[in-house]
Amino acid sequence: MFKKGNINLLQNELKKSGLKAYLILTSDPHDNEYISEFYLKEREFFCPFTGSAGSLLITENKAYFSTDGRYWIQAENELNDSGIDLLRDGDINVPSLQQFIKENHFYPLGVNYSNITKTRLDKLNKLGIVTKDVDFSYLINRKEPSRANKVFKLSDDLSTLNYKEKIDLILNEVFKKGASANLITTLDDIAYILNLRGNDIPFNPVFYSYLYLSKNNGSHLFIDKNKIDFNIDGVEIHPYEDIFEFLLKHEDIKTLVDPSRVNARIYSILKEPVEAKNPSYLMKAIKGEKEIENTKKIQALDGLALVKFQKYLDENLDKNLTEFDYSSKLEEFRKESKLCFDLSFETIAAVGKNAAMMHYEPAQEKSSIVSKNDIELLVDSGGQYFGGTTDTTRTFLIGKPTKEYIHDYTLTLKALIAVSRAIFLEKSDGHTLDILARQYMWNEGMDYKCGTGHGVGYILNVHEGPNGLRYRAVPERDDQAPIVPGMITTIEPGVYKNEKYGIRIENNLLCTKAFSTSDGYFFKFETITYVPIETRSLDLSIMTEEEIKWLNDYHEMVYKKLSPLIKDDELLEYLKKLTKAVGR
Amino acid sequence: MFKKGNINLLQNELKKSGLKAYLILTSDPHDNEYISEFYLKEREFFCPFTGSAGSLLITENKAYFSTDGRYWIQAENELNDSGIDLLRDGDINVPSLQQFIKENHFYPLGVNYSNITKTRLDKLNKLGIVTKDVDFSYLINRKEPSRANKVFKLSDDLSTLNYKEKIDLILNEVFKKGASANLITTLDDIAYILNLRGNDIPFNPVFYSYLYLSKNNGSHLFIDKNKIDFNIDGVEIHPYEDIFEFLLKHEDIKTLVDPSRVNARIYSILKEPVEAKNPSYLMKAIKGEKEIENTKKIQALDGLALVKFQKYLDENLDKNLTEFDYSSKLEEFRKESKLCFDLSFETIAAVGKNAAMMHYEPAQEKSSIVSKNDIELLVDSGGQYFGGTTDTTRTFLIGKPTKEYIHDYTLTLKALIAVSRAIFLEKSDGHTLDILARQYMWNEGMDYKCGTGHGVGYILNVHEGPNGLRYRAVPERDDQAPIVPGMITTIEPGVYKNEKYGIRIENNLLCTKAFSTSDGYFFKFETITYVPIETRSLDLSIMTEEEIKWLNDYHEMVYKKLSPLIKDDELLEYLKKLTKAVGR
Repeated sequence: MFKKGNINLLQNELKKSGLKAYLILTSDPHDNEYISEFYLKEREFFCPFTGSAGSLLITENKAYFSTDGRYWIQAENELNDSGIDLLRDGDINVPSLQQFIKENHFYPLGVNYSNITKTRLDKLNKLGIVTKDVDFSYLINRKEPSRANKVFKLSDDLSTLNYKEKIDLILNEVFKKGASANLITTLDDIAYILNLRGNDIPFNPVFYSYLYLSKNNGSHLFIDKNKIDFNIDGVEIHPYEDIFEFLLKHEDIKTLVDPSRVNARIYSILKEPVEAKNPSYLMKAIKGEKEIENTKKIQALDGLALVKFQKYLDENLDKNLTEFDYSSKLEEFRKESKLCFDLSFETIAAVGKNAAMMHYEPAQEKSSIVSKNDIELLVDSGGQYFGGTTDTTRTFLIGKPTKEYIHDYTLTLKALIAVSRAIFLEKSDGHTLDILARQYMWNEGMDYKCGTGHGVGYILNVHEGPNGLRYRAVPERDDQAPIVPGMITTIEPGVYKNEKYGIRIENNLLCTKAFSTSDGYFFKFETITYVPIETRSLDLSIMTEEEIKWLNDYHEMVYKKLSPLIKDDELLEYLKKLTKAVGR
Repeated sequence: MFKKGNINLLQNELKKSGLKAYLILTSDPHDNEYISEFYLKEREFFCPFTGSAGSLLITENKAYFSTDGRYWIQAENELNDSGIDLLRDGDINVPSLQQFIKENHFYPLGVNYSNITKTRLDKLNKLGIVTKDVDFSYLINRKEPSRANKVFKLSDDLSTLNYKEKIDLILNEVFKKGASANLITTLDDIAYILNLRGNDIPFNPVFYSYLYLSKNNGSHLFIDKNKIDFNIDGVEIHPYEDIFEFLLKHEDIKTLVDPSRVNARIYSILKEPVEAKNPSYLMKAIKGEKEIENTKKIQALDGLALVKFQKYLDENLDKNLTEFDYSSKLEEFRKESKLCFDLSFETIAAVGKNAAMMHYEPAQEKSSIVSKNDIELLVDSGGQYFGGTTDTTRTFLIGKPTKEYIHDYTLTLKALIAVSRAIFLEKSDGHTLDILARQYMWNEGMDYKCGTGHGVGYILNVHEGPNGLRYRAVPERDDQAPIVPGMITTIEPGVYKNEKYGIRIENNLLCTKAFSTSDGYFFKFETITYVPIETRSLDLSIMTEEEIKWLNDYHEMVYKKLSPLIKDDELLEYLKKLTKAVGR
C-alpha cells in the first residue's frame, strides 16, 4: 500500500545510483493493458491512484503522475494530499510526460526495460533522454505471481480455426514479410493462436507466456509448467524464463517482432529482427463464423442479466443500496448463466456526479448510495463467457432529470445511432467514422475525452486492436486499421459534466457487408448488444424520424432476442415495457 | 506529340542500357503539381494522355499508364488505340504502380533522379526495385524553357509579413529541429517566403528556383538571372544551375530538407540532411490578416464574373456554343477585373456526360456543344488575382433534369452544407471531417473518387497542403494536418455517373475560431466563395430545415457581397433572382 515515505525510499536509491529520476509505467513484460497484482504492486506502492492507466515519475525531490482524460477527475481526487502532482496527459498546454522529462532534464532516467516496449524506449532516447535499465522493485513487498492459475483449452465449437490452421496462416504472412520466425509476446495473441485461455490477470483470460513460431524450428511456448496440464501437439513447452536463452540460441534467424509491443529487454537479444505487426493482431480482430454466432448467443444472455438488473434497480431504489451493492448484484445476474466465467472488466456503477468520472469504479468501502436524489446510475460492465466477451453501458434514470440532462442524454443517443446506421466504403477506419458520433457534442462545445469506441476480443481482452474509433490517430494506440467485416467495435459516446452527471450509452457493433457497387465495397454495422435503452430521459423533439425508427427497430430486436430466454411472466412484462416503441 | 513509334525508340535504348523498364513521372525537379511544357513534353512524347497526373512505365515490349480515379474515364478514352494499358491506381484489386513493377520484375528500372522525390525513390528501393539514374530525354525534341518569364514583387498591401520576417520565423523553426540551414526546393514555398511571383508554369505563379536559408551563411536564391531585374536585400542571387556546386561547398552544414519534396539528385549531395517538413509548408497555409482580407475582396470579383457567366449561359443556350466557347467567355468575364492576371487552372466546362469525367478539359478542336439536350453544364474554374486565388465549381441546369439527377444534385448540396456548418475540436484534420460530406453518397452506394477538398494557395498554387479533406490518409499527399484558423480549404463533393452526368458544387472555406470551452478550442468554417448555387435542381423535400436555412443565408450573403459591385440594373435583377430564398 502507498505511504508518502515509500517515495522517499526510492529517492534515496536514486541518489545512490546517480539517476535523476525513475519511471514506473502501468505495465508488465507483455504490454498487457490490465496487469496482474504482482506487476501493479510497484506503482501502487508509490502512488495512491487506483485506475488502470498512467505513469509515475519519481525525481530526486518530487513525484508526478501522468494520466489521460478518462482519469483526470479520479486522479485529482485520489492524488489529493499524496504530494504527487498530476500531469493531465492530452490537455491543452500540458506537455506529454516525455516532453516533461526532457524539458526538466530528469535524466539519466531509470526504467525497468522489461516493463517498457521497444518503441516507447526508443522515443525517450530519440528525444535525447538517456535511460538505464534498472529495477528498484526490491524495495517493494510483493509476492511472486501465483503458479496455480491453470490454462484451459477452448472446446472445438468455440473456434472457427484450430491452432494449427492459425499457425500456418501466420507463418505464411511471416514469410511474406521476409522473416522465417515470429516471436509473439502479447498474451491475448498467444491465447488466440493456441485456442487456450488462462487466469493470470483480472478480467483478461490470458496466461503469462511467450510464443515462438517458425517454419524450420517448430513452435515453442514459454510458460510456467505448473500452469499447463496437457501437451499441445506440435508445440514444445519450455519454462517461462527460458525465452532469453532460447532466443540467444536462435539469434541468426530472421524473426518478425512487433517493436511497439515487445519489451525492450527481450528485443535487445534479437540480432535479426524484422519489425512488423504480428499477423495475429489483425487475424484475431476479424472474427470467424463460429466466433460471431457464439458472441451473438452470449450477448443475449448478457442482455438478460442487464434487464434483470434494471428491474432490480427499479424495485430497490428506496433501500439505500450502494453502487457497490448494485455492481455485485449485476455480477450475480451475469453468473446465473453457467457460460459466464468472469467479468470482462471491473464494473463501473456510478451514481450522479460520480458518473462524470469516466472510469469510476465503486469500492466496497467508499461507494455512494444510489437514490432518487440523483438523476442517473451509469453502469458500464461486461462479462467473459464461453462464447464471447461483452462490454455494455446503460445510463439508467433513477431520479428527476433536468432539462439539461434530457438534452445531453438525447445527444448521446443520437451520437450512438449515427455510427450504428453508418454505411462506409472499404478502407474507412475509426478516424473516418468518429465524427458521426462526436458532432453532436462538438456542436455544443462539448467533447468526451476518450475514443468513441474500441475493438472487443473474443473470450479475451475487452480492449483489442487494431480497430477503434477516434477523431484523430493516436499512433501509440495502433487502433486505426480499416474496419472490415468480422470486426467487433464498441460505440460509446457520452456527456460528462463535472460535479453534475455523466451519461454514456455503449453498444457492440459487428461490421458486416452492406453492398458492393461499381464504386466499391460498402460496409455497415450490425448491433449485437441486446439491452434496452432508457427512453424516459429522451427529448424526442430533437430526434429525427429516422433516429426514432432506429430506436424502435432496435427495441423490437432486443425483445425478439431476449423474450425466448425468459420464463418469468413478470420479467417478460417488464422487458415489454422497456422495449415499447416510442413516438412523438 | 505522341506517336506509337516513340515508344519503340525508347525500348531500343532500354535494350542497349540493360534496363528492364523506364519510369516517367508527371513531374519536374521541384515536385510541382503542374509542370511547365518543357518537363511535360517527355510524357507527352510517349503517351497521348493529356490530364495532369499519372505515371508512364515503358518496359521492353509494353507500356503502362497509371493514374488515379479522377482520370480513369479520361485515360480510357485517350489511351484507346495507343497500345498503352491503363492501370487504375486506387481501384480494388489493382496493384499500385510500384507493386506492379515489383511483381513483374520490371527492374533494373531507369528513372531520371532529378524528376523523382527522395521519398518516392526510397519506396521503390525498399521494395527491392533496383533503380538507376538515367535520362532519355535526348530522344525528345523539346525547346529549353523560356528565360524571359520575369519575376515580380507583390506590393506591400498583399502580404501580412515581409520576406525578412518570414525568413526569421523559418530559421527559428529550423534551429528547433536541430539544423542551421533550410534548403527549399518547392516553388510555391519559395514564392511565398520571398513575396515574389513568377510565370514559369501555367496557372501557378511561381518561378523555377532553389532557396537556401541559413543563420550563418545568409540567404541564397538560385534562379536564371534573366528572370529577375532587381536585387533582394539580404538574399544573394546565383545562377539556377549553381545549386549543386553551392551545396557541395556547404556539405558540412546541418540542412533541414523535406525528403518527400526534394528531388533525389539534389538530396544525394547533402551530407548532413535533417529530414523534416519545411517550416514554410505550414506557415504558408495559415493565411494572415491581409491575405484573408484581400482574398475575400477578390472572391467577390470572382463571384461577379460567375454571375455574368451564368446570365450569358442562360441567354445563349440556343446558339449551339461549345464548352470551349463558354470557358473562353468565362475567362473574359474574369479578366474584366484588372486584378485578375491568370486562371488558377485550366477551366473545366463539361456538358452532360462529359461532366462524369471529373477533370475533363474542353479542347477547342473537340469540345461538345452546350444545349438543352443535356441536363447540366459543370464549370470548375478559378482565377489568379492580385489578392488571392479562387477555385469554384457550379453545376448549372441547362436542360430538363431527371428525378435521379435532382436527387443526386440535392445530395451533393447536402454534403457541401454538412462540412460548411461543421464545428470541430482543435487537432481535427480532413480525415476527421470528410465523412460529413461523403456520408450522403455512401448511404446510396456511391463515392466520388477524389478528396472532398484541398488547401488553396494565396496568389499561388490552387492545390496546396498541408490541409485537405479525405476519408483516409494518403501519406504521399501529406495533406492531413490539423485544420486551424487561417487555412483555406475547398469543399467539393459530387456525384459522377458514367455516360450520364456529373455534378459537383465547390466552395472555399476559411477556418475560423468558433468558441472555446472547458473541453477545448473549437473551430468552424466561413464560406468565402460568393457565387449563387443553382436551386432549380433541388429536391427540397429531402433537405432539412437547417440545410434550407443555410442555403438561404448563404444566398443573402452572396447578394450583399456582389450587389455593391453591380451597376447594371438587369444584372442586379438577375442576381436577385439567383439568390432568392427557397422554401417548401
